[in-house]
Amino acid sequence: MNAPTGKLENASSKGYRIIGTRPIRPDGVDKVTGKAIYSPDFVAPGMLHGAILRSPHAHARIRAIDTSAAAALAGVKAVVTGADLPDDATLLERDNTGEALHVARHCLAVDRVLFDGHAVAAVAATTPEVAQAALALIAVDYEVLPAVRTIAEALAPDAPALHPDHTVRGAEPGSLPANIAAVSANSRGDVAAAFAEADVVVEGSYRTAPVHQGYIEPHACVAQWNADGQGQIWASSQGHFMIRSQVGAILGIPLADLRVVPLEIGGGFGGKTRVFLEPVAMILSRRAARPVRLAMTRADVFRSSGPAPGSESRVRMGAKADGTIVAVELDVSLGCGAYPHDESTPALMSATLPYSIPNFAFTGRAVFTNMTTSHAYRAPGAPQGSFPIECTIDQIAERLGMDPLDLRIRNAARPGETGYFGLPHGEVGFLESLEAARAHPHWSAPLAEGAGRGVAAGAWGNYGGPSSAEVSVAEDGTVLVTEGSPDIGGSRASMAMMAGETLGVPYEQVRVVIADTNAIGFSMVTGGSRVTFATGKAVIQAVEHVIEQLRHRAALIWGVETEEVDWRDGAAWCGSGDNAGQSLSLAAIAARANNSGGPISASGTVNAQGYLPGCGVHICDAVTDPETGVTTITRYTAVQDAGTAIHPDYVEGQIQGGAVQGIGWALNEEYVWNAVGQVDNPGFLDYRMPVASDLPMIDAVIVEKPNPAHPFGVKGVGETGIVPPLGAVANAVSRSLGKRMAELPLSPARVHAALTAS
Amino acid sequence: MNAPTGKLENASSKGYRIIGTRPIRPDGVDKVTGKAIYSPDFVAPGMLHGAILRSPHAHARIRAIDTSAAAALAGVKAVVTGADLPDDATLLERDNTGEALHVARHCLAVDRVLFDGHAVAAVAATTPEVAQAALALIAVDYEVLPAVRTIAEALAPDAPALHPDHTVRGAEPGSLPANIAAVSANSRGDVAAAFAEADVVVEGSYRTAPVHQGYIEPHACVAQWNADGQGQIWASSQGHFMIRSQVGAILGIPLADLRVVPLEIGGGFGGKTRVFLEPVAMILSRRAARPVRLAMTRADVFRSSGPAPGSESRVRMGAKADGTIVAVELDVSLGCGAYPHDESTPALMSATLPYSIPNFAFTGRAVFTNMTTSHAYRAPGAPQGSFPIECTIDQIAERLGMDPLDLRIRNAARPGETGYFGLPHGEVGFLESLEAARAHPHWSAPLAEGAGRGVAAGAWGNYGGPSSAEVSVAEDGTVLVTEGSPDIGGSRASMAMMAGETLGVPYEQVRVVIADTNAIGFSMVTGGSRVTFATGKAVIQAVEHVIEQLRHRAALIWGVETEEVDWRDGAAWCGSGDNAGQSLSLAAIAARANNSGGPISASGTVNAQGYLPGCGVHICDAVTDPETGVTTITRYTAVQDAGTAIHPDYVEGQIQGGAVQGIGWALNEEYVWNAVGQVDNPGFLDYRMPVASDLPMIDAVIVEKPNPAHPFGVKGVGETGIVPPLGAVANAVSRSLGKRMAELPLSPARVHAALTAS
Repeated sequence: MNAPTGKLENASSKGYRIIGTRPIRPDGVDKVTGKAIYSPDFVAPGMLHGAILRSPHAHARIRAIDTSAAAALAGVKAVVTGADLPDDATLLERDNTGEALHVARHCLAVDRVLFDGHAVAAVAATTPEVAQAALALIAVDYEVLPAVRTIAEALAPDAPALHPDHTVRGAEPGSLPANIAAVSANSRGDVAAAFAEADVVVEGSYRTAPVHQGYIEPHACVAQWNADGQGQIWASSQGHFMIRSQVGAILGIPLADLRVVPLEIGGGFGGKTRVFLEPVAMILSRRAARPVRLAMTRADVFRSSGPAPGSESRVRMGAKADGTIVAVELDVSLGCGAYPHDESTPALMSATLPYSIPNFAFTGRAVFTNMTTSHAYRAPGAPQGSFPIECTIDQIAERLGMDPLDLRIRNAARPGETGYFGLPHGEVGFLESLEAARAHPHWSAPLAEGAGRGVAAGAWGNYGGPSSAEVSVAEDGTVLVTEGSPDIGGSRASMAMMAGETLGVPYEQVRVVIADTNAIGFSMVTGGSRVTFATGKAVIQAVEHVIEQLRHRAALIWGVETEEVDWRDGAAWCGSGDNAGQSLSLAAIAARANNSGGPISASGTVNAQGYLPGCGVHICDAVTDPETGVTTITRYTAVQDAGTAIHPDYVEGQIQGGAVQGIGWALNEEYVWNAVGQVDNPGFLDYRMPVASDLPMIDAVIVEKPNPAHPFGVKGVGETGIVPPLGAVANAVSRSLGKRMAELPLSPARVHAALTAS
Repeated sequence: MNAPTGKLENASSKGYRIIGTRPIRPDGVDKVTGKAIYSPDFVAPGMLHGAILRSPHAHARIRAIDTSAAAALAGVKAVVTGADLPDDATLLERDNTGEALHVARHCLAVDRVLFDGHAVAAVAATTPEVAQAALALIAVDYEVLPAVRTIAEALAPDAPALHPDHTVRGAEPGSLPANIAAVSANSRGDVAAAFAEADVVVEGSYRTAPVHQGYIEPHACVAQWNADGQGQIWASSQGHFMIRSQVGAILGIPLADLRVVPLEIGGGFGGKTRVFLEPVAMILSRRAARPVRLAMTRADVFRSSGPAPGSESRVRMGAKADGTIVAVELDVSLGCGAYPHDESTPALMSATLPYSIPNFAFTGRAVFTNMTTSHAYRAPGAPQGSFPIECTIDQIAERLGMDPLDLRIRNAARPGETGYFGLPHGEVGFLESLEAARAHPHWSAPLAEGAGRGVAAGAWGNYGGPSSAEVSVAEDGTVLVTEGSPDIGGSRASMAMMAGETLGVPYEQVRVVIADTNAIGFSMVTGGSRVTFATGKAVIQAVEHVIEQLRHRAALIWGVETEEVDWRDGAAWCGSGDNAGQSLSLAAIAARANNSGGPISASGTVNAQGYLPGCGVHICDAVTDPETGVTTITRYTAVQDAGTAIHPDYVEGQIQGGAVQGIGWALNEEYVWNAVGQVDNPGFLDYRMPVASDLPMIDAVIVEKPNPAHPFGVKGVGETGIVPPLGAVANAVSRSLGKRMAELPLSPARVHAALTAS
């Protein structure tokens, strides 16, 4: 790829020394030379190899499991089934939200299997080969039941109920059809009246497929659970504190007794915010009295981890002749798979987030189907909620003959306007992003014959939340930052940059580690685009405490009051007495730390508030070959408000990565089931993600409208980029073909079928 | 061993709930089941195996080293020699104390080898076998020089000078004989006048042999030094911050760029407070671009790590007829081996530490010899300094016909009296220890025919110094303590006890981890009997900060001022408003932490002052067979002032362990050199440490005279126990034989020779 053309001028104009520059990542050498320890690399001495027997049926009752032959095999040290996890009542007592129960049952089935790939038993043995041989000796007596493969099948009147006893919060028991996992709704204004006054009304139905995050390494862990009840887990994830809390809740382990050590992670995108293997590895370890490793194959990942839900939606939108949108109705159903997982709230919230919509009525639901339980995928729910809206806005622009960017500018949310939940937006940067897109050369470039140009916007609310950090000064004045947020998108670098900027020392003088659950305070998962914002605030807070200590130490050395000492440019400056005007560098104070009270360290903890949504606008040029249905993206530009871009390379990388994943979602990715609900394409050969050669350079353009609630203005950038592509690509293809395409993916087969049908 | 009879009644009488109890150690299961990772267990992916070529000569000039054949061997990835470490000028610039220079040269010789086993080259290869084969291909051209094997040989007028250019601090260049590494002296009062008034004067010469700490696992490490200059070392030691500072100084690495991860340690006793392998492993790794492991064999440990110096001393002591000691002259020479290491100051300081001596004149020196550089061994210098004093006091008691305990009681240092350095003692507990010994059944028990009963006292100054701790509260109210002091004597348990006591929660609710150098602030080595005192203070300080936060959070929940909230019994108590009298447990506050400001964590850092010496009194019954010279210890009692015993099991273990090591030092342990200075007994078969079957139960008696400078009264207990045994055993054997024995070890051969000569 060529270097992106995105320019960043704000940061330097603010006088920052480090923020806004693009230093080398400190973990780069380890990662490119293969020294970094990812889950598959970690080995514990004496470790056993676990393996999981998975159901070949999408829906079945388990009549019996006979593990005796497996247990008798030489080299097998433990065999467990769902009966070895706590029972339902115990799990509900430990976590009355039901999450522990559902996560546990997903990890290891009891009585029924609910999806192709559902784990039914596990073994631990001295070698992987013995473990596989043991699996072959486990006899499971299944009574196969009819499988519910899609949202439509799940909502059919005669559909088999996956969870007949499931109760939906906010709904009378029995008032809903079978297989409804959750519902949500929100509305504002007088929708009927607004539609009555609309000059143009567009409506339509849309569908997206379940898609997988497609992170690099499959899930893997090593677990050790001692006879004294203390345990340790080594795993890569988006949050080792998440592993601790989920495993602790399922197995009833006091949290201080469960140490979770984070290993490097090759991407999660939301799919590594839940445990799949860890509770099983723990009970195998307890039984075998040895550390146990469990790892998924790629096929296991597709069949049994947590992909994004597919969706079926219906939208109706009314606008005035000048392009002002006056009313929107939206209904979104999301297929959550085997156990409850509800993204309908963020789907609805994100759908029109960037716009000012005076009147709307939104409804959403999660629907059980016989596939692996869905889970978060980058801006969870937002692509599914936004896609129908952005396609509809495109049609209104067509109907009114308006430029689709101008139409969006007319309806763009402005700072301070009322957001989806009735609270005012803060310094939202949507208008600036739209204007940057309109000013971008791409928008005015000539379009090739037969090509279509689509545009779409999208937004993600971002998040803050709890994070912890610790900052220590070494004897030579170099600085150590400890934090609890796994580094996925370059946060070691961005934390070092923010710490260095705050402290006034060079970036290279600060090193960051991600500590385990016993070595740093609680920190929420790396997700929700929260780390640079929230963990960044914790780091800055700890640095500020360190600066207080440094001023105090310098004051002791000079024999003045701490108030007489300033901190600037990485040094203490004396404001009074014999030493007035003199300075002591960080290194000079560090060298005398033990003579002025001991080592210099401080903690920072936050439940970070004041996060603001990130808005983006994508422009896509596409050519679809009507004969084959093959779509080629010929040019792609992604504009996004970052608040402030701490490390622009990583911000551009996030924007590009989100765009590419969204393009994959739009064009090719989908789960394919056979007639009995088995996944027919559980691998990257048959599940078609875009690769570098499929796409042009994604031109990432950073807009900076700083967030006043963060010392450097950070908003969060990880997720917004995946929201616009579904609409941008669909709008481009629809304009290329002259036919509205409303079902994703726009795979050659589907496009060809649609063209043939017309 | 049977349970010790030592009683502890003080703690419970102080109303502590946890302090003074004997809970299970939290790291016990890992250690007894082999899951704990010690240095030999650690494996880095892609790791190479290093090996070191060691000199067979005790003293030689290196004319040339040819490593070309080794480098050409298939599988060899790096070969280094001393020339690959920085030169002298660079090392002195990085550390003008000369320590970095001397440590580096000990690790890898340049130009000259100074001891049998001195490292001259190192290789890294794909397998240990290839590494060994490569060593055999390295050709070293030595010019052998005469070896200086003992202090006497080193101080002989014609002795070869090991370091002709060495300058001694505090001495005119050229004013001292060759091979003097360091000198020290101290005096008080009018010694000559006091001797003139003495009723009895006893003088004599004493000798102790160099002895090894004999820890369980040989030194080993894995090092990785990346092309970007960042490095990582995994090793067990008494202090990973020590490894960081020494390797950083030798290799010029900013400390934040060098992460040292502590592995479990099977004992160090002072011998693991210096690097031997790590700088070499680092330069091999940098050259090979792979992690490299280096490990010592047991023979390597004996030949090239840092044992305790042997000593030659002369003492003269005068007393009044009532037993009052009025004057002492003491001269102690310590053989420091190849490079400077000076224990003469603590040797002199410890010699009469427990006594009030009005007039003394002490001189000491460290002397170079051609053996591996000596290093700290449990109360470094104190056994060598105390042994001649305690033997002399015994002779004064014999001469005066006094009970040797009564004589010591007459001369015992009292609280507030002036100590060795002219500063007042604090609450020293020597008198109480002597009285406990006199009251012990052992002292009045009948003595078997032919047996001798010896008594001796001893003391160690203890230490405080810099330590860091971090305390976090998990979501369920369990508590995590992070500290930087390797756990050798059970400090995970004692830190959890002090944290639990301070916080008011059960011991089991608190878990402690030893974090790496990047995850916790600077902490000095585990040594000097400092950890329970100093790191304990850091932990308690962090807990107190956490309690402040908990009170603040409770106040927010109740809507009152923080000042209105008390903390007691593990809960916040509301003192005003609608909730007056109500309480919120730690768990209840923890569950709401993220709604009241975020996670709860705090740091504690100290440079702990106010440490006080620990004093001990040992009683030994011994029978020596005059025909064979074999000595059997038939009964042994060790009394010691602990300040407060946090975990009495561990205090008793320290007292017992010190006593056993001291008994080994007294009876059998010594380095044996052949005529050319090679170590003839570098292994446990020929270097005779006492094993369980050699000894009776050591009855450890804890005296508790709390230290007012520690919240729970801790003084430190690890080292004092090794000081008295040399005198106690020698006094018992001398009384058994009716002949004064003044040279250690009292091995059968030496005793037999002494008896034959008489």
